[in-house]
Amino acid sequence: MKTANDLFKEFKILSVSEFFKKNADMLGYTGKIRSMTILVHEMVTNALDACEEAHILPEIRVEIDHRGDSHYEISVEDNATGIPLKFIPDVFGKMLAGSKAHRNMQSRGQQGIGVSGAVMYSQVTTGQPAVIISSTGEEMWEVKMNLDLQKNAGKIIEKNKINDNGWRGTKIVIEAKDVTYNKSKYSPYNYLRMSSIANPHARIEFIEPDGTKILFPRSSKTLPKSPKIMKLHPRGMSTDDLLVMAKNCRARKLGSFLRSELARVSRKKAEEIERVSGVSLDKNVSRLTWNDAERVVNAFKKIDFMAPSSEGLIPIGEENIIKGLSLINPEFSVAITRAPKTYRGGIPFIIEVGLAYGGKSEPGIEIIRYANRSPLVFDQGGCVINEAVKSIDWRRYRVNLESTPLTVFVNVTSTHIPYTSAGKQAIAMEEEIFNEVRFGIMETCRGLKRYMDSKRRAYRKKQRIDSLLKYAPETSKAISRLTGRDTDKVKNLFIKLIEKKYA
Amino acid sequence: MKTANDLFKEFKILSVSEFFKKNADMLGYTGKIRSMTILVHEMVTNALDACEEAHILPEIRVEIDHRGDSHYEISVEDNATGIPLKFIPDVFGKMLAGSKAHRNMQSRGQQGIGVSGAVMYSQVTTGQPAVIISSTGEEMWEVKMNLDLQKNAGKIIEKNKINDNGWRGTKIVIEAKDVTYNKSKYSPYNYLRMSSIANPHARIEFIEPDGTKILFPRSSKTLPKSPKIMKLHPRGMSTDDLLVMAKNCRARKLGSFLRSELARVSRKKAEEIERVSGVSLDKNVSRLTWNDAERVVNAFKKIDFMAPSSEGLIPIGEENIIKGLSLINPEFSVAITRAPKTYRGGIPFIIEVGLAYGGKSEPGIEIIRYANRSPLVFDQGGCVINEAVKSIDWRRYRVNLESTPLTVFVNVTSTHIPYTSAGKQAIAMEEEIFNEVRFGIMETCRGLKRYMDSKRRAYRKKQRIDSLLKYAPETSKAISRLTGRDTDKVKNLFIKLIEKKYA
Repeated sequence: MKTANDLFKEFKILSVSEFFKKNADMLGYTGKIRSMTILVHEMVTNALDACEEAHILPEIRVEIDHRGDSHYEISVEDNATGIPLKFIPDVFGKMLAGSKAHRNMQSRGQQGIGVSGAVMYSQVTTGQPAVIISSTGEEMWEVKMNLDLQKNAGKIIEKNKINDNGWRGTKIVIEAKDVTYNKSKYSPYNYLRMSSIANPHARIEFIEPDGTKILFPRSSKTLPKSPKIMKLHPRGMSTDDLLVMAKNCRARKLGSFLRSELARVSRKKAEEIERVSGVSLDKNVSRLTWNDAERVVNAFKKIDFMAPSSEGLIPIGEENIIKGLSLINPEFSVAITRAPKTYRGGIPFIIEVGLAYGGKSEPGIEIIRYANRSPLVFDQGGCVINEAVKSIDWRRYRVNLESTPLTVFVNVTSTHIPYTSAGKQAIAMEEEIFNEVRFGIMETCRGLKRYMDSKRRAYRKKQRIDSLLKYAPETSKAISRLTGRDTDKVKNLFIKLIEKKYA
Repeated sequence: MKTANDLFKEFKILSVSEFFKKNADMLGYTGKIRSMTILVHEMVTNALDACEEAHILPEIRVEIDHRGDSHYEISVEDNATGIPLKFIPDVFGKMLAGSKAHRNMQSRGQQGIGVSGAVMYSQVTTGQPAVIISSTGEEMWEVKMNLDLQKNAGKIIEKNKINDNGWRGTKIVIEAKDVTYNKSKYSPYNYLRMSSIANPHARIEFIEPDGTKILFPRSSKTLPKSPKIMKLHPRGMSTDDLLVMAKNCRARKLGSFLRSELARVSRKKAEEIERVSGVSLDKNVSRLTWNDAERVVNAFKKIDFMAPSSEGLIPIGEENIIKGLSLINPEFSVAITRAPKTYRGGIPFIIEVGLAYGGKSEPGIEIIRYANRSPLVFDQGGCVINEAVKSIDWRRYRVNLESTPLTVFVNVTSTHIPYTSAGKQAIAMEEEIFNEVRFGIMETCRGLKRYMDSKRRAYRKKQRIDSLLKYAPETSKAISRLTGRDTDKVKNLFIKLIEKKYA
């Protein structure tokens, strides 16, 4: 038997980068194909977010070069604002650093892990630094950098100032081994195709390893509205959240703190909170105890607030979904943007569903999933969207799970997507999200059912007409013999009659 | 349009605790039932690992008390070595700290996140500190502590020395809100039942919120061998791994470094590595470049090594799996421990599969999944075990997916389980693991098929005998009339004849 002292000799502390290096599967780096797509995904996500924040119509260029056995170079270029030199090591080399995680705002990335994870994967498999070229309009730099995993920090190895040539944006170039390229459903090609469907305002150029140039053109020239930072809604807050905010806010008294920092808290609502919680609005926020905060949060739950504003949430929009789905050339398509809802009490989200029937859809249901317009390619089995699709009684809508060629498009827009893993490929089973996806599908399915019914009616009608027309020549001959009229004339009249009666 | 400087004003860095607080879904805290079970899971995992490391037959006591609306107190007590006072804040309050992550050794926990995550969930939902009582044999302390999330550190609020009463072990008590208790498949009850199946050497006592006391008794008194720290196998190493190890090792020259730090590298193998890589064994390890290390790692891939030793891997064992499955009272059961294999080139793992037919199994296939004996209750859809089960052509083995009452037990034992998420509920799609699970199932299925065939034969035989016996009375009467013998005697002879012929 061992003693405690024997055992605790081994006690150590890992950095977050070391943790994700050991557990690269949690970032999605499992297998050669998936690893390649995750690299592209993380870099493109960053590029699109950068354009969105700067309110620029995205022009993204992705290039994959073959370098050797399971060895590729991948570069992604955007036309956003560029990154000031001093932030480059943190943006691309420090996990949990960034401008996204601590703000209550819709964005594709939300963790500050993704692109640093890509640089880490590159470094661990090739030992090569990442190359970042970025121009802010004031300065343009080319930087070679790598990661100090034990310190969780980016380290510049070499930097060169470049003469401004008018270009603005950022280009990141990494090498990676243990990856491979193909054109399957799980490939960068399909990932970019899916990105294009949900981002019709983006122009995405893709150069495959064999030199093939693919353009996913811009199908909508309207720049979507920019997402906005939103105040937190009282209903979405925990006691702990409230205390952390209180500690860091500028307001001195509880009343002004609640009114200035939270959404939907008017002077009147603040007074109601005071009444229900018994905590004085004059209380100094720096002296707020857990007990006070808990009473305030419990009061939040008892009081009616206006639903959280969704003006900061920017869905894709029905028209743009239809435009996006037109890539599939469907025979019929329908899309819906549902009204904003909240989960966990106060985190706002919007569900959008699109259906595309026929065209390039394969027999059976294909689900294409998005979170804040970013395609979710892997881990479908563990995603709330998949559960919602499975829960639908498809036969009611004339859909045969095995043979109907149907693409189901679902996009979840939120200030905070509840991912099941840092790899951001599946959304957790939050009940409100599950229900909304279901309702969205059912709503679009009614349109589909009408189409399928009319299609079926048209088919039956055609069958009936066809079977009557079969007898037309014989019947016309007989009538012509009986009446002495011209056979062809009788036949034409007869056909017109059938078509008129059954059309 | 915004400039880079506007955008980068918002740049901040999160601590790993803040990250997981914002993304509690990634630790598995989604919904009230799941959150409750995850809390119990993390605390029990820690308790069982502590006993295993100390080589002690585990006696675990779990108690859940109802405190109010969605509000419970949960305590878990073990009989391991206890934790020295100075380590308590790190063990229960600092994420990524621990003795498990950096050693190449089989254990249930492997991240140093789980139990700190439970304390975090408790604190965020209730504001209450965790209470830790621990006795190492030298000292016994009761500590109240909480987490400083911004610093990712445990903080002792109050500590009291307690007079030694002979008890050794650790007890952790936390409160939690936004949790609930029931007895479903996803409940702590079922989690503990599953734990008991895979840990027949553990005695687990469970007190439910209504006071019901449930004992999962020890069904095997043999303590499993203790897992051992294993050296890394060359085939499982990346260039980066090799460089990090080289930087931290005691050896001075490459040759002695390889022989002392890696598994299966003899003097002869080292010379082969030198020949294939072209890197001198006399090279000073501190001067090893990426290029050198990469050539060495490439040589690893070209050279034949003995497979990694699996002596440090402790599977459950066929006999113990059968003992565990006896909880289901099956009509038929079979289990197999496969030979050790490796994934990603060099990480050793062992697959075990058990099948239990009939008894308390419900109609249809129920999969019960384990990783290092720890039950995986959630996220089945995204787990390699599920994919492997789905890939089997069950009809070949007389199994009807809808009606056959079959429990499929799978345990993956490894020094490093490739989880898809920090919540540790699903194993990533590593191809070698997928194949081994498949082979394991197919092997056990052959036993099942034999049983099902013999069962079917027995049934057919019985049908045949029954139909012959139906005619026995009439036939006997007729024979008795013809021969003048006693009817009953004839009948008995006749029945014996049928049974002899068709038995």
